[in-house]
Amino acid sequence: MGGGGITGLNGVRLTPLATIAGSQGAVMHVMTSAGPGFHGFGEAYFTTVDEGAVKGWKLHEQLVCNLVVPVGAVRFVLYDDREGSASRGQFEEAVLSPDDYRRLTIPNGVWFAFQGRAHGLNLVLNLANIAHVDGEQRSLPLENDLIPPYAF
Amino acid sequence: MGGGGITGLNGVRLTPLATIAGSQGAVMHVMTSAGPGFHGFGEAYFTTVDEGAVKGWKLHEQLVCNLVVPVGAVRFVLYDDREGSASRGQFEEAVLSPDDYRRLTIPNGVWFAFQGRAHGLNLVLNLANIAHVDGEQRSLPLENDLIPPYAF
Repeated sequence: MGGGGITGLNGVRLTPLATIAGSQGAVMHVMTSAGPGFHGFGEAYFTTVDEGAVKGWKLHEQLVCNLVVPVGAVRFVLYDDREGSASRGQFEEAVLSPDDYRRLTIPNGVWFAFQGRAHGLNLVLNLANIAHVDGEQRSLPLENDLIPPYAF
Repeated sequence: MGGGGITGLNGVRLTPLATIAGSQGAVMHVMTSAGPGFHGFGEAYFTTVDEGAVKGWKLHEQLVCNLVVPVGAVRFVLYDDREGSASRGQFEEAVLSPDDYRRLTIPNGVWFAFQGRAHGLNLVLNLANIAHVDGEQRSLPLENDLIPPYAF
């Protein structure tokens, strides 16, 4: 199961994951229902992000993300604007890749954006606690009046 | 959600999945808890299989596999030896890839093996209804006395 590291932003979690090499291929752990960061299963989907491109800002009011990157490298930037949060006003950044293989848990209510960092495919798997619901997601352009400028 | 095609072997299902292209990358559906083939969530993991290599035969007594291939191409071969099954003694084969993007649901009790078919990475995601349990999986070599010979 592994411990699962608590990070700077309240409720955000980076969980180290095992990769087990074999003679015909590897096995890479992702998540179990008994492990850290699990908040239920509603939907799984892949997102790809081209090198240099940034998807975001996004915020889910209800959905908790559990994100892994099995191919390429993806930089995630998180911003906490939650009322009453001890880490309100803070950023956090993590680069996920197969070489530094971890799962990023983003609680609902935290702004995030992510950027492709490798040539070719940058593949993100999200295991979300709820299925897609219209109106549950908020979006902002990278330049906006709420989130301070960030150097992507 | 999509329909989800019933296939030759009893309980096996191939569900077509959407890929939505975007200006910065794509989104590829995998599974929702309300969609066809969902039997609960216990564990997610990736398996890779080298080109030409075959992993199998395997059988899960309890675990239901939901398999997608977001990178490369993987050939799955299934064999039904379930007592009382209308399709007992039959094989079924399906090749999964991003170009023919589908989810393969393999019920517990069905033998399966899978082979890498592309150069480079062949990546399989399994969304399993239960987490790993020792003793729940059976294995046979490709040549055995139970499953008729198959030309991989």
